[in-house]
Amino acid sequence: MKFAIIAPEVPAKKWKKSFQKIAPKISILIGHKTKNPDKIIVAMVWKQKHGLLSKFKNLKLIISMGAGVDNVLSDKSISNKIPICRIVDKQMAFSMSNYIIMAVLNHHRNWYDYDFAQKNNHWAQFEIEERDLKIGVLGIGHLGMDVAKKLHSLDFNVSGYSKNSKITPFQSYSGNKLDSFLKKINVLICTVPLTPETKKLLSNTFFEKLNNQTYLINVSRGEIQVEKDIVEAVNNGKLSGAFLDVFEKEPLPKDSPLWSHPKIKITPHISSLSYSDEGVKQVMENFERLNKNKTLLNEVDKKRMY
Amino acid sequence: MKFAIIAPEVPAKKWKKSFQKIAPKISILIGHKTKNPDKIIVAMVWKQKHGLLSKFKNLKLIISMGAGVDNVLSDKSISNKIPICRIVDKQMAFSMSNYIIMAVLNHHRNWYDYDFAQKNNHWAQFEIEERDLKIGVLGIGHLGMDVAKKLHSLDFNVSGYSKNSKITPFQSYSGNKLDSFLKKINVLICTVPLTPETKKLLSNTFFEKLNNQTYLINVSRGEIQVEKDIVEAVNNGKLSGAFLDVFEKEPLPKDSPLWSHPKIKITPHISSLSYSDEGVKQVMENFERLNKNKTLLNEVDKKRMY
Repeated sequence: MKFAIIAPEVPAKKWKKSFQKIAPKISILIGHKTKNPDKIIVAMVWKQKHGLLSKFKNLKLIISMGAGVDNVLSDKSISNKIPICRIVDKQMAFSMSNYIIMAVLNHHRNWYDYDFAQKNNHWAQFEIEERDLKIGVLGIGHLGMDVAKKLHSLDFNVSGYSKNSKITPFQSYSGNKLDSFLKKINVLICTVPLTPETKKLLSNTFFEKLNNQTYLINVSRGEIQVEKDIVEAVNNGKLSGAFLDVFEKEPLPKDSPLWSHPKIKITPHISSLSYSDEGVKQVMENFERLNKNKTLLNEVDKKRMY
Repeated sequence: MKFAIIAPEVPAKKWKKSFQKIAPKISILIGHKTKNPDKIIVAMVWKQKHGLLSKFKNLKLIISMGAGVDNVLSDKSISNKIPICRIVDKQMAFSMSNYIIMAVLNHHRNWYDYDFAQKNNHWAQFEIEERDLKIGVLGIGHLGMDVAKKLHSLDFNVSGYSKNSKITPFQSYSGNKLDSFLKKINVLICTVPLTPETKKLLSNTFFEKLNNQTYLINVSRGEIQVEKDIVEAVNNGKLSGAFLDVFEKEPLPKDSPLWSHPKIKITPHISSLSYSDEGVKQVMENFERLNKNKTLLNEVDKKRMY
């Protein structure tokens, strides 16, 4: 009986360590290469190449190591019968919300201008105004709701949008009210899942619906954005700038104009770190539930795609 | 009947505009030069030169335009009979708390390292760890309490210290427990008022009581810090870095080593902007109370010094 981790090197090693600590009896394979693929019953994946899982004939459970499940769902080699669960943990929300709030506050208080002033030995008192923000969170699922509530509790003006209406302590929009939502805000935080509906959503036609000088923060998936349109929208003033953690191609190609654009800040897909100890606990909990025929936690709805 | 505003140019002009909007009947003098000093009955001050107010023989009320009142209290030319009030407004707390949380989060998520990586076209995924913060707020008055509660609600580990014990939703220390408080934390946020007790507090002997690699954020008063000791403490690893909004001399002298220290971030005393509309409303409220012999709002206790 073996569990496999198919993921980039750093998270894979962390998860293996957490297994050794929390569930030392479980034998862990890193990667897909094994003489006995039939022994693998659980696979934990992040950014796995499509097709790799098909050799595990006895696979009973797939775990997405992050919040986004698009890459697992689009892998057509995976049997529809195998349940897919994702990790949903408080620490992940803590990490992602802090990242987003950092991006919001650096914009709000114009940190980049003060940083520039310091580098130029310039005392910029009274030269830089605090911005009046109207923050919109597009996609108020587990992570989007967490950051929206937190920004609301920091006394910011916050609105949310989701496909289906939700009860929220801040103003929220749903269904066909997307345009009204977009007209109300000047900071757009994108936390939607990647689905056929959201693919290439952040493009010129979408930006046209925003107020001029809206600030864009995208932490969801690179496939949701069209980077050349973002650059154009920043250059023509539709967007005042962007803070991006995800990209159409990752790692971001060396020749991308995003690297050096003065109004675009980038980070290497690190907004929400998954915490391996918590992740392993959730895997073990779901493995036990599977064996006892109980309902799984955080199972992905394959139709809804999240 | 006239009110005088004695403050740097930018806030003075903003306040005058707010008076024209909110209390257009009040005649406003900017500065101290007037042929009829006897007509000035209210003075609003920020960083006024000592001695200027003594020519206003009929002065009945002094307003500190910011939260700190040290510069007013130390002006010996002011009659002890004239009440001094300060502006205490929600917007000021909003502004300062956001500034502090920005400094905390940039440290927490290592923004400066990611910024450096972007400038070098380097995809730094998995190279930089999120920091495990234990945040201490030194001075949990109006502003310190606000930021401590907000950081607590963002799920950070927060402790507070104040001279007198307070009821707090996070762990707090008081009286002779300062050393225990300092041993518990790795981020120190300084929001104490400037008093003879706190003058030059942030110096080597104080830093010795901290854990190694503690991060310092000072937004209170420059006179509370000894800048050469901060530089020394950062260089020898007692402090992991500093984020400073206030300085011993302001504007910060051009030859200060703080400008170019790689681990020290500085801003030009802008952490808490006073909002002129709210300020003017509070001045007018207190002026009315004065005329009706009612208790003034946010009057400064001259003995306690805040």
